Amino acid sequence: MILSKGYVADRARAPLREFDFERRPARASEVLLEILYCGICHSDVAMVDNDWGFSLFPMVPGHEMIGRVTTCGAEVTKFQPGDIAAVGCMSESCRDCSHCRVGLEQYCDHISTPSFSTYERGTTNLLFGGFSSSYVVDQRFALKVPSSLDPAAAAPLLCAGITTYSPLRHWKVGRGDRVAIAGLGGLGHLAVKFARAMGAEVTVITSSPGKRDDALRLGASDVVVSSDSAQMTAGAGSFKFLLDTISADHSVEALLRLVRTDGTLCIVGVPSTPIAFSSMALAAGRKSICGSGMGGLPETQEMLDFCGEHGISADIELLPAQAVNDAFHRLKKHDVKYRFVLDMRSLSR
Amino acid sequence: MILSKGYVADRARAPLREFDFERRPARASEVLLEILYCGICHSDVAMVDNDWGFSLFPMVPGHEMIGRVTTCGAEVTKFQPGDIAAVGCMSESCRDCSHCRVGLEQYCDHISTPSFSTYERGTTNLLFGGFSSSYVVDQRFALKVPSSLDPAAAAPLLCAGITTYSPLRHWKVGRGDRVAIAGLGGLGHLAVKFARAMGAEVTVITSSPGKRDDALRLGASDVVVSSDSAQMTAGAGSFKFLLDTISADHSVEALLRLVRTDGTLCIVGVPSTPIAFSSMALAAGRKSICGSGMGGLPETQEMLDFCGEHGISADIELLPAQAVNDAFHRLKKHDVKYRFVLDMRSLSR
Repeated sequence: MILSKGYVADRARAPLREFDFERRPARASEVLLEILYCGICHSDVAMVDNDWGFSLFPMVPGHEMIGRVTTCGAEVTKFQPGDIAAVGCMSESCRDCSHCRVGLEQYCDHISTPSFSTYERGTTNLLFGGFSSSYVVDQRFALKVPSSLDPAAAAPLLCAGITTYSPLRHWKVGRGDRVAIAGLGGLGHLAVKFARAMGAEVTVITSSPGKRDDALRLGASDVVVSSDSAQMTAGAGSFKFLLDTISADHSVEALLRLVRTDGTLCIVGVPSTPIAFSSMALAAGRKSICGSGMGGLPETQEMLDFCGEHGISADIELLPAQAVNDAFHRLKKHDVKYRFVLDMRSLSR
Repeated sequence: MILSKGYVADRARAPLREFDFERRPARASEVLLEILYCGICHSDVAMVDNDWGFSLFPMVPGHEMIGRVTTCGAEVTKFQPGDIAAVGCMSESCRDCSHCRVGLEQYCDHISTPSFSTYERGTTNLLFGGFSSSYVVDQRFALKVPSSLDPAAAAPLLCAGITTYSPLRHWKVGRGDRVAIAGLGGLGHLAVKFARAMGAEVTVITSSPGKRDDALRLGASDVVVSSDSAQMTAGAGSFKFLLDTISADHSVEALLRLVRTDGTLCIVGVPSTPIAFSSMALAAGRKSICGSGMGGLPETQEMLDFCGEHGISADIELLPAQAVNDAFHRLKKHDVKYRFVLDMRSLSR
């Protein structure tokens, strides 16, 4: 067994504490990673707090993992020891349904297996996540990380990155398109970089006038302050595609007015209250409201390669693993620009 | 002036009464129609009741008009006296915006002019609708009616027809697609006929088990009763496209579960309460909720020609104009299969 350390929550809303555990060795098609960095996502906090009611404890969170391959199973062809590899939101899927066969594992007919707070697929063994010193995963669910990327700043690409890259690609955002990104947080700041790199003319919609300079620095050409009704009215019918990354409750109908005829508003935030709007707001302009869940493995690799090519990674605050509880606290107050990453090398081993 | 008769509501929620009025003569690019038939749409009732707060009185409702051309202005090239012509929801638009220039007059940047309960474009003259003996309209906003269609049964095509045909076309419903039509009323029964004629395999979603035989007769191959949870569960993830024609308040999230990955739910009913659903319901399968408003003039003509080719018209109950109040009363109780059409020839002249 692999002696490991990690940060665990023993029960819902418990502070995380350092603890020792064992991982099983890598099987023939699997790799063992030494985790170097792990991003902190709002969903890590929500899972520890059991906000969605399906958390399993004890829980080691973490699903934005960057690690070094230390051991390759006998059948592994994709990696060699020493490679930098990444693991995101999923650790396994059925691999055989109509979705898995086309690389849309996130929509697996038999439900893909997350990378933590779950039973390892086909077992009753709790799976611990990336707030730890090691991880074992099938090579299919591990990604190659371009050598041009700073590995710490690449960690958030595995969830915040693919969650925003995938819909921008799926709805074919490209050169010259007028695109809006609503919300400038962990997801939003990456979405701005992606959309700009895809050639779009990017506007940030934010409730915080103070984020204007950051928005422009990240690649936006314009900023609309959502509480300014004159700005919102002036922006009506402007955007082919609006990516709504806002997790707080907010008016989707107000954002919908910014979308042009035949345009799309894609929701990737997870507000706690239902989305609500008048059917007239959709009909007046044949508009669409869509959702998108993460991305499949092939597209996640494509996203990482795109990031390597365009020099895109997250704006992060790198913290020692021991600061995890402080980071959770600050994340709940939205006190982060724009993603916390834990340095797992700081775990005593 | 053209001496005319019609049925008028003097104020909100007033019963309609027969009355005499004058229409101005047709101008150079206009035609004068002798109205033969006019369908009754839920929105006629809603407008008389001022449900949406923008009704103008006195009001002659009616926007599913079939008439005979009696006079053509000097510049009219599209019609000759004696032709059967139709007028739908719009009587005019700006003609010059990006939408009008591509035949999407329903999304006119300067708001298209309805065919009743409005001021004639550019004037302060109230425009009376199709519950009358005559109508004057620019040739652009009049449609040709294929001679193969029964003119009375063709009337509902002008609103219920184009409202359902347009989204089925826009979202490319075609041969072999699994399509669901939710709600089997004036809109839904035409949607079933259209989708079937386009080659789709059609399922009707209805709260009324008693509509099963009608659904199959109209062209559906299957029926799902929405109150039967076993049927709804069995249908999960089945449909590429679901057209929601239900005007009563209902669970859009329940319908969304029937849509497959990357599928679309299009809402053409106008429920009085907001549409509401969890963002998770969209993300789990990258689904879209869309709206669609009527159709432009070119597509309305295409729809009529399609109906002529495929022998499609509405299932109607033809009533004398004098029965209009009774028809309104029955429509409010959903006591209609599937559309009332008024015989305007019954007006004393």
